Amino acid sequence: MSMSVQHRVSDHDRVSRAVNEARIWSRLTELGGCSSTPNRGVTRLALTQEDIEARKLVVGWAEALGAELYLDDATNLFIRYPGLNPSLPPVVTGSHIDTVPEGGKYDGAYGVIAALEVLEAMHEANIRPNHSVEAVIWTNEEGARFAPGQMGSAAFSKSRSLDEIRSIKDRSGISVQEELTKVLHAIPGLRRRELGIPLRAFFEAHIEQGPELEAEQIKIGVVTGIQGRRSFLVTIVGEAAHGGTAIQTERKDALLTAVKIISAIEAHVLKSSDARLTIGRVSVQPNAPLVVPAVVEFSVDVRHPLNNEMQRLGDAIPEICRQLQGVCTAQVEENANAPSINFEEGILQVVEDAATRLKLSHKRMLSLAGHDARELAKVTSTGMIFVPCKKGVSHSAKEDVLSEDLAAGARVLAGAVLTYASHA
Amino acid sequence: MSMSVQHRVSDHDRVSRAVNEARIWSRLTELGGCSSTPNRGVTRLALTQEDIEARKLVVGWAEALGAELYLDDATNLFIRYPGLNPSLPPVVTGSHIDTVPEGGKYDGAYGVIAALEVLEAMHEANIRPNHSVEAVIWTNEEGARFAPGQMGSAAFSKSRSLDEIRSIKDRSGISVQEELTKVLHAIPGLRRRELGIPLRAFFEAHIEQGPELEAEQIKIGVVTGIQGRRSFLVTIVGEAAHGGTAIQTERKDALLTAVKIISAIEAHVLKSSDARLTIGRVSVQPNAPLVVPAVVEFSVDVRHPLNNEMQRLGDAIPEICRQLQGVCTAQVEENANAPSINFEEGILQVVEDAATRLKLSHKRMLSLAGHDARELAKVTSTGMIFVPCKKGVSHSAKEDVLSEDLAAGARVLAGAVLTYASHA
Repeated sequence: MSMSVQHRVSDHDRVSRAVNEARIWSRLTELGGCSSTPNRGVTRLALTQEDIEARKLVVGWAEALGAELYLDDATNLFIRYPGLNPSLPPVVTGSHIDTVPEGGKYDGAYGVIAALEVLEAMHEANIRPNHSVEAVIWTNEEGARFAPGQMGSAAFSKSRSLDEIRSIKDRSGISVQEELTKVLHAIPGLRRRELGIPLRAFFEAHIEQGPELEAEQIKIGVVTGIQGRRSFLVTIVGEAAHGGTAIQTERKDALLTAVKIISAIEAHVLKSSDARLTIGRVSVQPNAPLVVPAVVEFSVDVRHPLNNEMQRLGDAIPEICRQLQGVCTAQVEENANAPSINFEEGILQVVEDAATRLKLSHKRMLSLAGHDARELAKVTSTGMIFVPCKKGVSHSAKEDVLSEDLAAGARVLAGAVLTYASHA
Repeated sequence: MSMSVQHRVSDHDRVSRAVNEARIWSRLTELGGCSSTPNRGVTRLALTQEDIEARKLVVGWAEALGAELYLDDATNLFIRYPGLNPSLPPVVTGSHIDTVPEGGKYDGAYGVIAALEVLEAMHEANIRPNHSVEAVIWTNEEGARFAPGQMGSAAFSKSRSLDEIRSIKDRSGISVQEELTKVLHAIPGLRRRELGIPLRAFFEAHIEQGPELEAEQIKIGVVTGIQGRRSFLVTIVGEAAHGGTAIQTERKDALLTAVKIISAIEAHVLKSSDARLTIGRVSVQPNAPLVVPAVVEFSVDVRHPLNNEMQRLGDAIPEICRQLQGVCTAQVEENANAPSINFEEGILQVVEDAATRLKLSHKRMLSLAGHDARELAKVTSTGMIFVPCKKGVSHSAKEDVLSEDLAAGARVLAGAVLTYASHA
């Protein structure tokens, strides 16, 4: 064994020991308090006051650590632990802190706090690798307020232009532009940085959001890639009428038409095993008990691990809408068509090595959910680490995890990050 | 012919000539401006600022006429034209000025402006009958904000207690009590009156909200009664989960369950000819594209002209929900079960006589929509007068009418009111 390898093994050991389980847990608990629904899970929609408060908490912890802080035009927030050679591209790790309405404390937030813990551990173990290491908060991963999600990471990867993103509005008509401006000025003392700097690698730690690890009592998921998805917005336009008087056969009832279409989409998609279908958002206009609905909008999200099958399932949706629209008009807009992607074999092995070194059970698995890592994989070597969560429940106030599993994941993350950051 | 009959015929003639078509039209146009959606129909939900503004307009017109103004505890507003014997119970006529979201200018408002026009015409023709005549605005007929509707008239008829009504809240948690207090103090100079005073008779003019009169080119509908309705609120409780990861067969998807139940309700109810089914309001929690819906609420409104058939159709709804709830839980709450009612033959003849006297074509017809007249029929002799509306469209920004038809309806109303008010 050469001196340099010996040195690195020793650093891995020290950084892993410096990871502080209690600090991760208490920070996640504190972050979970930034919610507009304190008694019904965490509601911290992107670019809201709750988002700003959570950012302030993280910035406070980063400042205590003496880290440098940067913000880009998409309000992605970078916490920099400078390497021995600061001109080398950084190894970046992190996730998001926005949530769905009434979501959990760990989806996204865990990846940010684990990333910050990697910096804390390097600092405490007095390890300074060649490459700088940065923890990142990507803006608006969930897309619950401003759709679609993975907004900050997509701006970073340049797969979406900032101009296009800025014009997106939430349901009350507020634009991303307005809210970005607010967030850019909400926290004093952050330096500005341009979008899309070169990276050495990107890692994201995340709860699995599925039941496999827990069921198989495996501590670490070595994520091989990200399942694709197709998402649609269907708008049914009928005509409002008096619910008591309008003759049934002369109505243009957008709701009953939507129900027919959703039934048919469900029958079509769920014939395929391993497919997942979510009609998560529905809006009805004018939405009064005695008025025949004039307009119904609903979202359709279709996933399948096999790209061909996902394409086939998605292709049928506009056709189903056309066939069943009847006297109403169905418009179908496709918001996303993202095929499954695979991470590089090399990075999987680095994650596996880190888990093996820590004697943690691990398995390779596909991420069924989308993550910012999908965007980062377009511009740099990217890996993900999953930790178990209770019954696979996520996007719910019932999301739950074991503190020791979060610490184990952060130790694997620290190991993988250190390996990439140590290379010349 | 006796002197007294001769005198009454002559009064009928004079009051009818004093009805001013242009004034009715311009007042309805002005009232239509009190809307929170000025470019998308009239949105004047009960007990809102728009409702208050509309009341102020009407009060201004009533004050110019020199009428006395009274408000009861349910904020029903009475405009009194005193009779020769003010101790006799008044003949009351009117309707409501609240609307559904993005509704029309004529539903409700026409009945109020026509009632005020009866007072104007009596005043101009210098006719003072034995009984006082009052125009009334009933509070919250639509129930679009505070459900159920016919709130003010039900409080007046004592079929609902004011205490129960006061505790009802809108979707943002504001109670009827708070808003009643606001409205009670919004307009200075109104006298207070107790709820539910004795009446001589009640008349309500209204647009048909159905296509029959227009299609048959008949000017006046002599309303024989009001079709019944049963209304339900169905709540499906499932469990939120991540739309990308949660295994399809393990989900408790409240939306897909609601879709199954709505399909079955539709199939069941619409097998019966003449039945009407409206699923007008749907709410989804948490309502985000990538979250499996945890809770879905929807309204069900079922009508049928035959009481037995309506009972049979409604009785099946809780059973359908139970059978199809699957892994979710369906709760069914019945909000209203109102059988069809019939008006007195005597009052129908008075309305017919008024139309005949004016040489207006008329026919007897059932009201398919509910009206405040349903509540008033519980406490006094009650009649309704329908005028044609374009294609039967109502509860829609497209609601339309002919000015001359509104004037004709007001003339019939004035005649019927005068007949009842003239009796000793």
